[in-house]
Amino acid sequence: MNSREEIIECLVTENSGEDIFALAAKLYPICRSITGDGVRQTLHHIGAHVSLDVHEVPTGTAVFDWTIPREWNIRDAYIKDASGEKIVDFAQSNLHVMSYSIPVHKHVSLQELKKHVHTLPEQPELIPYRTSYYAEDWAFCMSHCQLENLRDGTYEVVIDSSLKDGSLTYGEYLHKGETEDEFLLSAHVCHPSLANDNCSGIALLTHLAKRLAGIRTRCSYRFLFAPGTIGAITWLARNEDKARRIKHGLVVSMVGDGGGPTYKKSRRGDAMIDRAVVHVLRHSGLTPTILNFSPYGYDERQYCSPAFNLPVGLFQRSKFGAIPQYHTSADNLDFIRPEYLAQSYRLIAEALNVIENDAIYQNTLPKCEPQLGKRGLYGAIGGDKDAAAKNMAMLWILNLADGSHSLMDIAERAELPFETIQKTTQLLCNYRLLTRKAEKMLR
Amino acid sequence: MNSREEIIECLVTENSGEDIFALAAKLYPICRSITGDGVRQTLHHIGAHVSLDVHEVPTGTAVFDWTIPREWNIRDAYIKDASGEKIVDFAQSNLHVMSYSIPVHKHVSLQELKKHVHTLPEQPELIPYRTSYYAEDWAFCMSHCQLENLRDGTYEVVIDSSLKDGSLTYGEYLHKGETEDEFLLSAHVCHPSLANDNCSGIALLTHLAKRLAGIRTRCSYRFLFAPGTIGAITWLARNEDKARRIKHGLVVSMVGDGGGPTYKKSRRGDAMIDRAVVHVLRHSGLTPTILNFSPYGYDERQYCSPAFNLPVGLFQRSKFGAIPQYHTSADNLDFIRPEYLAQSYRLIAEALNVIENDAIYQNTLPKCEPQLGKRGLYGAIGGDKDAAAKNMAMLWILNLADGSHSLMDIAERAELPFETIQKTTQLLCNYRLLTRKAEKMLR
Amino acid sequence: MNSREEIIECLVTENSGEDIFALAAKLYPICRSITGDGVRQTLHHIGAHVSLDVHEVPTGTAVFDWTIPREWNIRDAYIKDASGEKIVDFAQSNLHVMSYSIPVHKHVSLQELKKHVHTLPEQPELIPYRTSYYAEDWAFCMSHCQLENLRDGTYEVVIDSSLKDGSLTYGEYLHKGETEDEFLLSAHVCHPSLANDNCSGIALLTHLAKRLAGIRTRCSYRFLFAPGTIGAITWLARNEDKARRIKHGLVVSMVGDGGGPTYKKSRRGDAMIDRAVVHVLRHSGLTPTILNFSPYGYDERQYCSPAFNLPVGLFQRSKFGAIPQYHTSADNLDFIRPEYLAQSYRLIAEALNVIENDAIYQNTLPKCEPQLGKRGLYGAIGGDKDAAAKNMAMLWILNLADGSHSLMDIAERAELPFETIQKTTQLLCNYRLLTRKAEKMLR
Repeated sequence: MNSREEIIECLVTENSGEDIFALAAKLYPICRSITGDGVRQTLHHIGAHVSLDVHEVPTGTAVFDWTIPREWNIRDAYIKDASGEKIVDFAQSNLHVMSYSIPVHKHVSLQELKKHVHTLPEQPELIPYRTSYYAEDWAFCMSHCQLENLRDGTYEVVIDSSLKDGSLTYGEYLHKGETEDEFLLSAHVCHPSLANDNCSGIALLTHLAKRLAGIRTRCSYRFLFAPGTIGAITWLARNEDKARRIKHGLVVSMVGDGGGPTYKKSRRGDAMIDRAVVHVLRHSGLTPTILNFSPYGYDERQYCSPAFNLPVGLFQRSKFGAIPQYHTSADNLDFIRPEYLAQSYRLIAEALNVIENDAIYQNTLPKCEPQLGKRGLYGAIGGDKDAAAKNMAMLWILNLADGSHSLMDIAERAELPFETIQKTTQLLCNYRLLTRKAEKMLR
Repeated sequence: MNSREEIIECLVTENSGEDIFALAAKLYPICRSITGDGVRQTLHHIGAHVSLDVHEVPTGTAVFDWTIPREWNIRDAYIKDASGEKIVDFAQSNLHVMSYSIPVHKHVSLQELKKHVHTLPEQPELIPYRTSYYAEDWAFCMSHCQLENLRDGTYEVVIDSSLKDGSLTYGEYLHKGETEDEFLLSAHVCHPSLANDNCSGIALLTHLAKRLAGIRTRCSYRFLFAPGTIGAITWLARNEDKARRIKHGLVVSMVGDGGGPTYKKSRRGDAMIDRAVVHVLRHSGLTPTILNFSPYGYDERQYCSPAFNLPVGLFQRSKFGAIPQYHTSADNLDFIRPEYLAQSYRLIAEALNVIENDAIYQNTLPKCEPQLGKRGLYGAIGGDKDAAAKNMAMLWILNLADGSHSLMDIAERAELPFETIQKTTQLLCNYRLLTRKAEKMLR
Repeated sequence: MNSREEIIECLVTENSGEDIFALAAKLYPICRSITGDGVRQTLHHIGAHVSLDVHEVPTGTAVFDWTIPREWNIRDAYIKDASGEKIVDFAQSNLHVMSYSIPVHKHVSLQELKKHVHTLPEQPELIPYRTSYYAEDWAFCMSHCQLENLRDGTYEVVIDSSLKDGSLTYGEYLHKGETEDEFLLSAHVCHPSLANDNCSGIALLTHLAKRLAGIRTRCSYRFLFAPGTIGAITWLARNEDKARRIKHGLVVSMVGDGGGPTYKKSRRGDAMIDRAVVHVLRHSGLTPTILNFSPYGYDERQYCSPAFNLPVGLFQRSKFGAIPQYHTSADNLDFIRPEYLAQSYRLIAEALNVIENDAIYQNTLPKCEPQLGKRGLYGAIGGDKDAAAKNMAMLWILNLADGSHSLMDIAERAELPFETIQKTTQLLCNYRLLTRKAEKMLR
């Protein structure tokens, strides 16, 4: 087992982008919804990497103000024109069917058909992604171009789906750390063939869980793979006591495109996770967007509901809804790239590193500066840029290591990367210029 | 009686601009000063709309560091040239005589006359407004053009005024609310024919008092119509105990021009009235100017003096002193407009609405989000912009209604208009998703 | 003795710039280092103006983590070329020898010589300033042009220096005030012929000490003239108890050039000295740079080390390291000017004035405004700009003199110069509108 000090070295591996992409590509074709076999298949793929606990919660179970809906499954769906040609085929893209469409098989006029077709007139080449979980209905989705070219006539519409009592499925994996303090990492598993939203997030967290397994950590890490909204609500309803252990958390979605990175703060706004991610993004060399909490978005809505108010933020690349590919057929495997997945992975790993390794150290020679030169610690000065940063890091750490500043406090005030502060702290400990005083897990 | 929840509907009426303008026009010709019959006539006009308590405070009465001065009245004044022609006539504009000019009747040379004439060389067409309350003197005011055209010769100057023991007059009207907490609304009534400064403010507050009479409110509303400085000081000196009840307050002046709106914060800077007015102005669609408190201005100087330090701000359109019409004959009835008066009235009414209706509500289903869809509360989504704002308002309210945030806190954090938050709160109460927890009257 | 209220009048004299420059010019030729006769000569010059306590601390004495090094002195040094011509001569510029160079006398090839020569390739005309206090070595410094023109051949190198047990020398002067609270003014005295860095600072503080002698002050003023780093550490190690008395402090260096002014805040960031200097600079009419504390710089590094954390900032003109003349032969007497020295002196004196004269006053008539007109205090209104500022100052002081705001608090909120607030306070005291309530020495 590696120690938590080695998170940086262990988690940022060269080929993580390819591994994550490969898993995302495996998950991409599956037709997921908030219930059904698509979720089960997805969890099965995840389970090939970590030993996942899979839960089935029966239809009709009350979860706070909500009720587990009937389970939806679909085998096939198509529209045939008068000549018998399949003009829309579920087998080609599962986006063609509105999620939770009830079964239908009839012949309809073009006019009638149009009442059950969703398109994107402003993006006429793309198929939209639509759902109707709680209002019984059926519909197809297609490109606006195609719709406009349909000729009058009779169309056969078939949706071979089922909506029956069954269960909602979610999976969780707990990496046990030295303490019961938990770090929640949550991805929604309810979207069909949308690569970025959220095959990317599922794959990234799966890879992270697998890699974390080899590391002795301070926090316990809970990975939750659940359908959006109803899944998070279900978990919270069944785990009210465990929820209280959550001291840090991230919802992870849309992490494979080249935009952002974007971080939406938790409702608290100044939780340690907020500080850690903001810090990491500011030192990433990228152009991050930091958003204040708002109650619209992904499952942070549930984690940050007033009775829970958990310190859970949202990590993304492009902000949801802010890009043309969002919830369309353009969110395909071409839209995500190994390099961006690797970058997202690294940023999240760096935030974990902050949470794991923040601590308070005490300068053992706090009266004036220690003489660094006689210890050879100034040797690097005059050297490369990194050396200059390390020298500044030494001075900042010695100046602020007064028992009331944690490494993160120092990194923030020095405007230096946590990693630089962390490594320089280790160096100064080796020279007995610092002693570890206390763990620091700010909340 | 309407309830306070209906302030928005009751106070913002379509023809308020015309009504306010009509009253301002009636007040405009009166020659007001800090004492005298002009003030009494003004209060008489106000009294036609609300039952005003008129107070007379005798000359010589000590009011803190000040003393009520002798009463000044004027019947006529003019300058005749050598040919006997009236070249300046008080009957044409009461600005022609410096306020508090002592009586005079003599023949003077042009040179001597010039020592007693005020003009505005930079605005040569306009007559300035001047006063000399506490230094006995006499003077005329005229346009600089006119002064420059005067020929040498003897001039007869007549000021038929009187400066005698009498009294200072002010009026007040109290709208009683459910509590003794008072909201002070104060306008100065000492300026002669200056339409914006302050016939506009007097008329607006009179109209507001009249309309408030039909509403059951939480605060009691004290309307004070008093001469500037000495009038406010007099009221405070005679009502030290009542002053302590003032929990919110606005000095209202120059509210009929198209500039601003301008709000100068109370000395405290973070009083509820400051938050309320700033919030309303920021959501007004106009381009407001928010100023920090300074001890120069109108009667907020007295209300915010250190021993009182009342939460009283100043509401104006253009900032006093910052426009060329200020304290000149150009501040006439053409300078103010019904539409601007109506707008000012609406903004003040909206601030009242905030003060009256801010309260703390509790989300009855605080664990995760309630299922809005099954209640039909999401029906509006996908509709117009307003619907989107209401949906966001629902989410924000449910998220922040944790017993520690008031509606105003929520409006500020959500960056949504208080009115939207207020109405959406009502909707959520109707669906029992919220309960009223407590009044909230931040100070 | 003048009183502290007269600091403004006493300290800002017309010819201070010339006097300070003259002293800086006397100090300029001396070859200073962190020990040796150069420091002693420098202190001797200072001692001609104030009665300096000179301390000698023997080689080998432990001062916290450091040890007083051997004493370095130098009599002569040169490089002769093959023809016997002196191509580099210490007598011409003491920058030619790296400080703390060990004695050497040998003949070397050009190649060997180059290993012991420092130049500035990017500033080829200038001689750099270099030191090697703690690593035994020898080197010459010269212009890069000269180095490039040297021909192959044998060179005679002579450094007639000594590095022997001796002592480190520093001087201090205490101006006793009414209290034991101390204001530290510290200049480093270890740089050789560098006019701005720090003949300017030494001369300015010497002049200030001399002028302060005639003034009865609240604080005691400790002037410390010590070698950089090791000198400050030595003083702190020998005066741990006295250090606790330091309530304000400034490190003063590079105060003769026309850049800046620059102020680097103390580690605390909100100490009274920080507020005072920032305030003075913001009202200086110059374009100041205000920097947050960082642990790199001058002796504030030691004063602000965690176990001391003294409220000591750094006052400079151009920021160290940020100008091309820094640590080169271009930092000569042409680089500093009497007018800039006078300006720096005035700014520091103004900050002293704030510290000395900040106090809390109480408005004796806090209910509404006092009637300023009847006291003739409004007489000035309508006059020049200064009168307007004084009128505003009167209003601000009366408004905020509620027993909880000091003059500095008022100056900051009113955005008026402390001096205006101070003088207007005196005026209002004369009229018994204010009484002095308490000293105010914020820390």
